[in-house]
Amino acid sequence: MSAYDYDLFVIGGGSGGVRAARVAASLGKKVAIAEEYRFGGTCVIRGCVPKKLFVYASQFPEAFEDAAGYGWTVGERQFDWQKLIAAKDREIERLEGLYEVNAGKAGAVTITDRAVLEGPHEIRLIGRDERVTADQILIATGGRPNRHPAMPGAEHCITSEEAFHLKELPKRIAILGGGYIAVEFANIFHGLGVETTLVYRGKEILQGFDDDLRHELHQAMDKKGLRVHCCDTFERVDMREDGTLAATCKSGEVMVADQIMLAIGRTANTENLGCETAGVELDERGAIKIDDYSRTSAENIYAIGDVTHRVQLTPVAIHEAMCLIETLYRGKPTKPDYGSIATAVFSQPELGVVGLTEHEAGRQYAGLEIYRASFRPMKNTLSGRDGRMLMKLVVDADSRRVLGAHILGPDAGELAQVLAITVKAGLTKDQFDATMAVHPTAAEELVTMYQPSYRVKNGERV
Amino acid sequence: MSAYDYDLFVIGGGSGGVRAARVAASLGKKVAIAEEYRFGGTCVIRGCVPKKLFVYASQFPEAFEDAAGYGWTVGERQFDWQKLIAAKDREIERLEGLYEVNAGKAGAVTITDRAVLEGPHEIRLIGRDERVTADQILIATGGRPNRHPAMPGAEHCITSEEAFHLKELPKRIAILGGGYIAVEFANIFHGLGVETTLVYRGKEILQGFDDDLRHELHQAMDKKGLRVHCCDTFERVDMREDGTLAATCKSGEVMVADQIMLAIGRTANTENLGCETAGVELDERGAIKIDDYSRTSAENIYAIGDVTHRVQLTPVAIHEAMCLIETLYRGKPTKPDYGSIATAVFSQPELGVVGLTEHEAGRQYAGLEIYRASFRPMKNTLSGRDGRMLMKLVVDADSRRVLGAHILGPDAGELAQVLAITVKAGLTKDQFDATMAVHPTAAEELVTMYQPSYRVKNGERV
Repeated sequence: MSAYDYDLFVIGGGSGGVRAARVAASLGKKVAIAEEYRFGGTCVIRGCVPKKLFVYASQFPEAFEDAAGYGWTVGERQFDWQKLIAAKDREIERLEGLYEVNAGKAGAVTITDRAVLEGPHEIRLIGRDERVTADQILIATGGRPNRHPAMPGAEHCITSEEAFHLKELPKRIAILGGGYIAVEFANIFHGLGVETTLVYRGKEILQGFDDDLRHELHQAMDKKGLRVHCCDTFERVDMREDGTLAATCKSGEVMVADQIMLAIGRTANTENLGCETAGVELDERGAIKIDDYSRTSAENIYAIGDVTHRVQLTPVAIHEAMCLIETLYRGKPTKPDYGSIATAVFSQPELGVVGLTEHEAGRQYAGLEIYRASFRPMKNTLSGRDGRMLMKLVVDADSRRVLGAHILGPDAGELAQVLAITVKAGLTKDQFDATMAVHPTAAEELVTMYQPSYRVKNGERV
Repeated sequence: MSAYDYDLFVIGGGSGGVRAARVAASLGKKVAIAEEYRFGGTCVIRGCVPKKLFVYASQFPEAFEDAAGYGWTVGERQFDWQKLIAAKDREIERLEGLYEVNAGKAGAVTITDRAVLEGPHEIRLIGRDERVTADQILIATGGRPNRHPAMPGAEHCITSEEAFHLKELPKRIAILGGGYIAVEFANIFHGLGVETTLVYRGKEILQGFDDDLRHELHQAMDKKGLRVHCCDTFERVDMREDGTLAATCKSGEVMVADQIMLAIGRTANTENLGCETAGVELDERGAIKIDDYSRTSAENIYAIGDVTHRVQLTPVAIHEAMCLIETLYRGKPTKPDYGSIATAVFSQPELGVVGLTEHEAGRQYAGLEIYRASFRPMKNTLSGRDGRMLMKLVVDADSRRVLGAHILGPDAGELAQVLAITVKAGLTKDQFDATMAVHPTAAEELVTMYQPSYRVKNGERV
């Protein structure tokens, strides 16, 4: 018999925590998982899932417009924000229930309470004021949007969390940030008919993505009337007498809007968690420091997911959970593998990428071949829509390996998922070329780009 | 100087013929290409391209319905068939022009006339009654729908060719056939609001595809009110006094419709082509016999594409053209590679597949692992739509190679295109598993099916 109440106590019921609890319990471990808010975590409750539902909602106006070129006349359309929110809430509630039930089914004890560390093996459940002990502890408390408290008027602003619960759809919104959350919400609000401005201090949106796609997406957003304002930021936000908000930019420009949203990064949820008491060290940004095996500075305490500031993506947190299970309970110490993680930005047009950007590859490889296709997707011919699709393969000229694949256009996220298999497996351009096209698809461009569009030598386009 | 007018004379301006002419000309060969109808061939003029435009048109009603679950109210919709036809015709005309221009730009002489063989090196241009000679001749005359002349009343029926130019959208249509053309048109007409019945003599639609997907698609069509009637066929078609048509089935059932469409296979265009004169042998179905290098029984005459009854797909004809160029003009005899050809059926839901079906693999491999996921695509949650998505991987238990990938659902064709790269490259299930998910996508299921759904031993499910 163990001297502890539990073999594993998991703090945080998001994707990473639930996965760890579920699998550990199914292996016969005595497991508890505590969640203070709602099971499902950022992804299910106020991230990926509701965000994608909003994306779907915001895409319909384009469909209504496109229909005309195909012979359809569509009567007047109206959008009811409250109806969308209610439908979304019902779906999220359903998923939340599934998350908790599945953890329980596997044999884990689910606790709806705030849990904090009281020592290396001790946890206090705040609501019920109860102390429990565990052999191993896993911190998976995730993160939350940075609310920019240093900015005067920050209290008037919303973040993505409130965006999912606005009582009314604003007529005008100004969003601060240039990362994927800012870009996705800008496209969602614009799609729903909101006059939208995106303000970003950097030179171009979506830092870290391939420059080509960043520019193309920026242009596409401009063209559809979504204002993108780079090299600027908000210095203050004031509420005016009529209840509207005014953001004063560093450039001097004043933007008036009904809502102002901050999407300027996320902070790890480590406050008042008892980390110090338990000997768990934080980094300078407040995230939990971990080694290659997700172990904190306390020998029996581990951390995974957004609370560790590695790669903040749901599948990565789940992967970290699975690796930890191998390490702790299957006698097979396993480091998470962060190579070739594909990712999508559900902007409109959508962006899906895997592997190295042209810029990154240019620094690592002496010679590159860049295969680039820009074309009008077939659906846009009759609809008359202006949007183009961009596909780009970054190939090592020496080994012929496809180092990166970058797509902007319909279903880019879906394509990136399958392309990730090819890039992860180290396939060559010749293996792409040996593949027969499927006609008519957009993806056939990926296997029919026979000549490089240009070459890169020692980081310079030649 | 050659003793002939041309180094290469191509008969037929479809995808295969144009590609061969274009590339041969760009290599400095003296090339002519003759087309009696319209450059672009089946694919561009009356196949893949206009078909996919129709598919887009027929998908809008689902979008209008789905919008409601996302908070949208959409006014009355009306569809104008003539408007679609006119828009489609303009686009096809544009593409047709491009095809001819591109062949010309490369240096090939384009001739709009019917060309027939008068000898192994002699061609007669019928319209202008002119004889030309060529060192090599390529037959790429394609195929056309079988009009079933043996059936009484066949003259009242349309095929896909007329379906692209109907003056009016019928209220009711009955379609005979169970292949991809029959299935695609049934879904198009149903989507556009036509009362549609599909009649097929076989036990299940889409012979040759994975049985699981065949059943699922059949069920999905049933559910949306598209009647699929297997194990039956039309014995005769009569025109009634009111101008409607009545198809009498073998089962005795009489189906009344405004149009009856036959989609029961295609015939090679070899009649009155002078094959006999030139020493070009045909097979028992009238298709041109060729060897592994696309050479006919006449030493200097070749044939590619649908006229040869190999794999009747546009990308395959193009591939055959490219292989022929290697063989003839680059001193590198090259056989077309027919392994792992991915293909899509643009039904609704869509179907995209590559590699072996479970049944085929069961006959070739002692042990299989089948990974199968059936789920509701996220978009269908709020829309309340019933449709499910099916993904299936057929894996050799011994080598772990993914032998086949089969998808039914949104964007299945796009996914199949990228999956084709992985299957063609011989990737293993472990390489799929090593790939990080992209969340939320449908395709992430492909890399997160960790346990086989079932196994197959010596062709039997265990």
